[in-house]
Amino acid sequence: MAAATTKGKVMLAYSGGLDTSCILAWLIEEGYEVLAYMADVGQEEDFEAARAKALKIGATKVFVEDLRREFVQEFIYPAVQANCIYENVYLLGTSLARPVIARRQIELANQEKCTHVSHGCTGKGNDQVRFELAYYALQPNIKVIAPWRIPAFYERFQGRADLLEYAAQQKIPVSQTPSKPWSTDENLFHISYEAGILEDPDVTPPADMWKLTVDPEQAPDTPERITITFAKGVPVKVKNHNDGTEVTDPLDLFIYLNTLARRNGIGRIDIVENRFIGIKSRGCYETPGGTILRVAHMDLEGLTVDREVRAQRDQSLTVEFSKILYNGLYYSPERVYATSAIAASQVTVNGDVRLKLYKGNTVVEGRSSQTERLYDMEESSMDVLGGFSPQDSEGFIRVQSIRLKKWGQSVIEQGGKF
Amino acid sequence: MAAATTKGKVMLAYSGGLDTSCILAWLIEEGYEVLAYMADVGQEEDFEAARAKALKIGATKVFVEDLRREFVQEFIYPAVQANCIYENVYLLGTSLARPVIARRQIELANQEKCTHVSHGCTGKGNDQVRFELAYYALQPNIKVIAPWRIPAFYERFQGRADLLEYAAQQKIPVSQTPSKPWSTDENLFHISYEAGILEDPDVTPPADMWKLTVDPEQAPDTPERITITFAKGVPVKVKNHNDGTEVTDPLDLFIYLNTLARRNGIGRIDIVENRFIGIKSRGCYETPGGTILRVAHMDLEGLTVDREVRAQRDQSLTVEFSKILYNGLYYSPERVYATSAIAASQVTVNGDVRLKLYKGNTVVEGRSSQTERLYDMEESSMDVLGGFSPQDSEGFIRVQSIRLKKWGQSVIEQGGKF
Amino acid sequence: MAAATTKGKVMLAYSGGLDTSCILAWLIEEGYEVLAYMADVGQEEDFEAARAKALKIGATKVFVEDLRREFVQEFIYPAVQANCIYENVYLLGTSLARPVIARRQIELANQEKCTHVSHGCTGKGNDQVRFELAYYALQPNIKVIAPWRIPAFYERFQGRADLLEYAAQQKIPVSQTPSKPWSTDENLFHISYEAGILEDPDVTPPADMWKLTVDPEQAPDTPERITITFAKGVPVKVKNHNDGTEVTDPLDLFIYLNTLARRNGIGRIDIVENRFIGIKSRGCYETPGGTILRVAHMDLEGLTVDREVRAQRDQSLTVEFSKILYNGLYYSPERVYATSAIAASQVTVNGDVRLKLYKGNTVVEGRSSQTERLYDMEESSMDVLGGFSPQDSEGFIRVQSIRLKKWGQSVIEQGGKF
Amino acid sequence: MAAATTKGKVMLAYSGGLDTSCILAWLIEEGYEVLAYMADVGQEEDFEAARAKALKIGATKVFVEDLRREFVQEFIYPAVQANCIYENVYLLGTSLARPVIARRQIELANQEKCTHVSHGCTGKGNDQVRFELAYYALQPNIKVIAPWRIPAFYERFQGRADLLEYAAQQKIPVSQTPSKPWSTDENLFHISYEAGILEDPDVTPPADMWKLTVDPEQAPDTPERITITFAKGVPVKVKNHNDGTEVTDPLDLFIYLNTLARRNGIGRIDIVENRFIGIKSRGCYETPGGTILRVAHMDLEGLTVDREVRAQRDQSLTVEFSKILYNGLYYSPERVYATSAIAASQVTVNGDVRLKLYKGNTVVEGRSSQTERLYDMEESSMDVLGGFSPQDSEGFIRVQSIRLKKWGQSVIEQGGKF
Repeated sequence: MAAATTKGKVMLAYSGGLDTSCILAWLIEEGYEVLAYMADVGQEEDFEAARAKALKIGATKVFVEDLRREFVQEFIYPAVQANCIYENVYLLGTSLARPVIARRQIELANQEKCTHVSHGCTGKGNDQVRFELAYYALQPNIKVIAPWRIPAFYERFQGRADLLEYAAQQKIPVSQTPSKPWSTDENLFHISYEAGILEDPDVTPPADMWKLTVDPEQAPDTPERITITFAKGVPVKVKNHNDGTEVTDPLDLFIYLNTLARRNGIGRIDIVENRFIGIKSRGCYETPGGTILRVAHMDLEGLTVDREVRAQRDQSLTVEFSKILYNGLYYSPERVYATSAIAASQVTVNGDVRLKLYKGNTVVEGRSSQTERLYDMEESSMDVLGGFSPQDSEGFIRVQSIRLKKWGQSVIEQGGKF
Repeated sequence: MAAATTKGKVMLAYSGGLDTSCILAWLIEEGYEVLAYMADVGQEEDFEAARAKALKIGATKVFVEDLRREFVQEFIYPAVQANCIYENVYLLGTSLARPVIARRQIELANQEKCTHVSHGCTGKGNDQVRFELAYYALQPNIKVIAPWRIPAFYERFQGRADLLEYAAQQKIPVSQTPSKPWSTDENLFHISYEAGILEDPDVTPPADMWKLTVDPEQAPDTPERITITFAKGVPVKVKNHNDGTEVTDPLDLFIYLNTLARRNGIGRIDIVENRFIGIKSRGCYETPGGTILRVAHMDLEGLTVDREVRAQRDQSLTVEFSKILYNGLYYSPERVYATSAIAASQVTVNGDVRLKLYKGNTVVEGRSSQTERLYDMEESSMDVLGGFSPQDSEGFIRVQSIRLKKWGQSVIEQGGKF
Repeated sequence: MAAATTKGKVMLAYSGGLDTSCILAWLIEEGYEVLAYMADVGQEEDFEAARAKALKIGATKVFVEDLRREFVQEFIYPAVQANCIYENVYLLGTSLARPVIARRQIELANQEKCTHVSHGCTGKGNDQVRFELAYYALQPNIKVIAPWRIPAFYERFQGRADLLEYAAQQKIPVSQTPSKPWSTDENLFHISYEAGILEDPDVTPPADMWKLTVDPEQAPDTPERITITFAKGVPVKVKNHNDGTEVTDPLDLFIYLNTLARRNGIGRIDIVENRFIGIKSRGCYETPGGTILRVAHMDLEGLTVDREVRAQRDQSLTVEFSKILYNGLYYSPERVYATSAIAASQVTVNGDVRLKLYKGNTVVEGRSSQTERLYDMEESSMDVLGGFSPQDSEGFIRVQSIRLKKWGQSVIEQGGKF
Repeated sequence: MAAATTKGKVMLAYSGGLDTSCILAWLIEEGYEVLAYMADVGQEEDFEAARAKALKIGATKVFVEDLRREFVQEFIYPAVQANCIYENVYLLGTSLARPVIARRQIELANQEKCTHVSHGCTGKGNDQVRFELAYYALQPNIKVIAPWRIPAFYERFQGRADLLEYAAQQKIPVSQTPSKPWSTDENLFHISYEAGILEDPDVTPPADMWKLTVDPEQAPDTPERITITFAKGVPVKVKNHNDGTEVTDPLDLFIYLNTLARRNGIGRIDIVENRFIGIKSRGCYETPGGTILRVAHMDLEGLTVDREVRAQRDQSLTVEFSKILYNGLYYSPERVYATSAIAASQVTVNGDVRLKLYKGNTVVEGRSSQTERLYDMEESSMDVLGGFSPQDSEGFIRVQSIRLKKWGQSVIEQGGKF
């Protein structure tokens, strides 16, 4: 450790792993004072061991921050309300965690009067963008050190062997667990797998890769039936009809949905997606509880949200919010704008959805609302007139056809085919 | 049959069921000459029995038309190319069949010099709109008789009992099968269930309702693995790796996908949707092969379609084409416009998708393309620089942050919270 | 007047003209008690003469309501904030007035315990839709009498001559002014001209048709220069630099902008538009003050609104809100949803726009903001580096090009042309 | 000139001005062989003088290429067909010219076996992006030299004085015309003015800045009347009714529209826009003929394009194509996709628009089409029923109101306000 720090104080996003441990040591070597910051966003981690390791390497302070509750309430639930999804498949688990991690990092950096922040993201991925755009928005004067984009660093550490050698030399303790042939990012919402053997998009992920969920083929043969209650589009109760369990605390509820989904093999996906920087990339993800919530929330919207509100929301809010999240633009005027309409879209999303969970399937078995009346059984009925005059439909259709008759006539006159 | 027809010739869309049989008789009673038209779009039906029945009732001609091939090639495959879906869930099976049925009905009406067409749709649903907007576009001078919107008809036939009585009186043969407590519409792409007991959106559909697919809980315990090959976004080959079956004919291929999906419990949904006329309605659907195709097609697009093309297509073509189909506007200038871009979006969608079918799940296990190069394993790799300079990302991020720093600074100055 | 009213009380939207005077008399003849309602939304009208006329014809009560202030503040200014426009040209003057008129009509109908409302709109236009959709949303049980859609009425009154004869017979006073060969609708925001000789879209409107604005060719040769000050996207001050006039009251300000625009020949348009019911229609409009406001507001947004917020707003809010207004869906869940984001889009729209008004032109001569800092002269400067590193652009461009190089390479390999 | 070129051959986009002349000399000094390329896209320029200058400085070859015809036909007319506009105001004149210039530059670079291309754009603007994204797409292996982003260059030439000194030293002839306090970019479609005194967005552009058009205040007091004839959305004839002139050649036609607009003061704008790199920037533009064409084309679309086609096109094609052009992504898969629908949208845009040009105003006086029949005078008429049954509107409105009544009822029940 440098006796006299000359280059400033750095708040490093630290994971406890080999990469950020080496970065920690290297930053000190480069003349910085380094404070280590670990965000608990629900990942499986021995935070105390990591704390000890950071101190041993030379961090002058270590912060371990439990952000799980704000992650669920401020980030996950609004994304559920907006039905966020990227490229029709990916539920944005990593994207959602980055802003809550970055925000606390900047708060601590400000509190500790750090001039710099640092992270261990590579130079080809999305996460560097997500972290840094958040840093710059939250603290426009902050300086960012991204070692994997600094030639002096990445040319020195060209592979895992170089890092291990450096760790040995710096007396950095190294986990004896053999490295997996892929990378992961885990939080309460999901886990991602990418790189390594997954870079060939035609390689089927090995069965032992999937960590959060049981293989659907190994899941119980008996379905579990649950009811999720929503208020203004946010889940407020989960009831398990198999065993009577009820959960209402926002954080506990989400954890419980994870438990249910994990044991029933729900939430695995495997896609080729487009990174913000324009490179196609293969990713596998498990989003257990989030997958159940998405199915349930969209179903309840069918019952309780007006058609045109839903159509507008689908075309603007859902699309924009998802893209903003993916591209790391959470702290931006467009995100504030995009989300300004969430409340207006969710005011009627109140009711219960009954679900069957079975070997990877989330099956809607019914839905109801005590308060909303947009669905009207009598009006909907094919057997009852219900205050409805069938002749009205005649006029409706005739008026709709005015344009089409004109067009059809012109196609016919020009000898066109339909 | 009236000795001297005075009101004109009607081409009636005839199903062979109680409703359209009574309509056939009633139209004759009203003074029309009636020609019966049955479209074979893949539904389970004894067409020859129905033909005999129509003739017995008094139809002067009966047309049974096999439209399955044009249905698959002209209607289903373009919808697959465009990833069509309504309100995030419904794959538009009924909507897709209506235009092919209506087109042939008008062709026959023109050929037989009919002045009128008729159908048995109710006055509260989508299908009346879909049929009639198609009729009016294809033949702007056609006259439409929709008995369920004519008071003289619907006041006389207020329930099934009235129809049965009329059938008895008219000597119309009636199926002895007891009526189901719901309505269905079936074709090669799907079957729908609605009305009756399903009108309560909290009633779980009874297990014996589902007709096309096996219950996932009863599906085989052993997965089936297949590869679907696409050319320009259209499936051109299915290979079953369990038994070596290969199918390439467009119609046979789709029928085979149905077979695979049916026996693996794939394609059931249950939703509350918004009808064109503004009434919420509960529908259950089975779309077996179409569900597999959707998963496979979207996955291959991830590998082979440019990010921005996909984003544009998702926001315009997919949304518009789906709405147009649902609302019965297939024969319209906007549909011609909407689909003008399909070819441009699908030119690169060439390759194979490997899938596992298992108890309701369609799991992507890998994908590849011999011709497309947008995915570049080396470029994508996190371990290889691959001609990529990490400093470029630095500039990319800094330029992206220009706007955000300005905004963040103003939020801070105004004492706002992030 | 019927001695014993048997059919109920009707609140009639009354204009004082020939049509609604005859409708008033006819409704009474049909057995209704009729209350006449006149909304002052800024049109040129002798309200007291009309009141006397309605009473003379037999209205049991007459209401003349000054709605100008709420029209400007609740309807016009939000449309300005959202840059509302229909089919790129029409500023929606009639559409904006209908909801404020209908709302008061329903309030009065409820207050007076009327079972019916009535209006004099034709059966082919937009206004019947706008009035009635508002009525039904605001009071779902209301009954609507639209005489121009009732055969007993429109078959009896097939032309102006029939109405004049009826007026004479009913002793309804008739204006001696000869009827114009077009129809108009006037309010504080605009006047419309349609029908009659304008139905030929190739007929140039006669010079004496235009009522609100001077012909640009007759407008002063000397420009007027003004400054409009906006706060959160709403105009709060207009200053005329030619004569020093300043206006700040919301209603007075709008009236003053009208004055300025009228004398400088600003705000005339002539278009063929698409009515909600699918008929194309030719309309001429004068929107004097609104045209100036639109130019000024959009210009200030350039200075003060973030790029991405503007792009999102342009693609969703502006488009949706405009369509909603045009189609008469102001009182709808989608309008509430669409406008939920207005505040979020306008929070930074604070500042001054300097304009030159000259013979039909509204020329922006400069803009500034005391509070907003998104525009940064140094950063924008081509001559100053301003904290900007040109190499950042290099990285930005290189990252943007990753996708394009891949695509370009494939085009070249396939022998394609650019 | 270096005796032995060691660093390769550079195709330099050369303007003849001070900047690119110094760049030419500097590149030679740096060890490159330089070929100068000048694109004639309609700007006012003494190309032969510039050619001589480039040769004098040391270019080994000089190419002067007349691209005006392809610029008009391949780039300008499609933008007119799509009604392209950026941020509601800017007609994209510079954006449209960049791809035609870059394409020829790469063709020549390939022909002359150049390894590099170079340009004189600054590091903060849009044009560097537009040129380079085009270069990289068209020739993915090309190397780009952007001196204004190279520290060795921009630190040496910190202002005009440094360039002038270098020019003197290198014996580069310098124009004696004093430099204007702003920058311009001119082509057949427009001229832009930015930077210098215009960087203060509240500075009114001086009267002598505007180069292409006469000040509206100085324009003739007598209007000119013209008719523009379109075929499939492209102008095919202009007729001047004042003097009988007719022009039909695509290039001549556009030049003639420029002449008309210039003398009538048409096409000036002044805006603050958002550059691709996220900086706000003030620009003034003159787009004379393009402004007339835009007004005329949009007007004819009102008469001849279906409502829904227009709405879709406005929301997708116009918006996307405009953004693509502005951001320099012309050679991209998304541009190919976006424009795939142009033909489908323009097939009916056939007819004449009559215009009055007067002191900055382009006034539509009428429009007609010999072939298109979507506008139907009788159907549109308010005075004639024209095959239209007013009761149909009743049904249309009632069906539209179903949703709204439900919503209104719930608002009322919850005590909400409208």
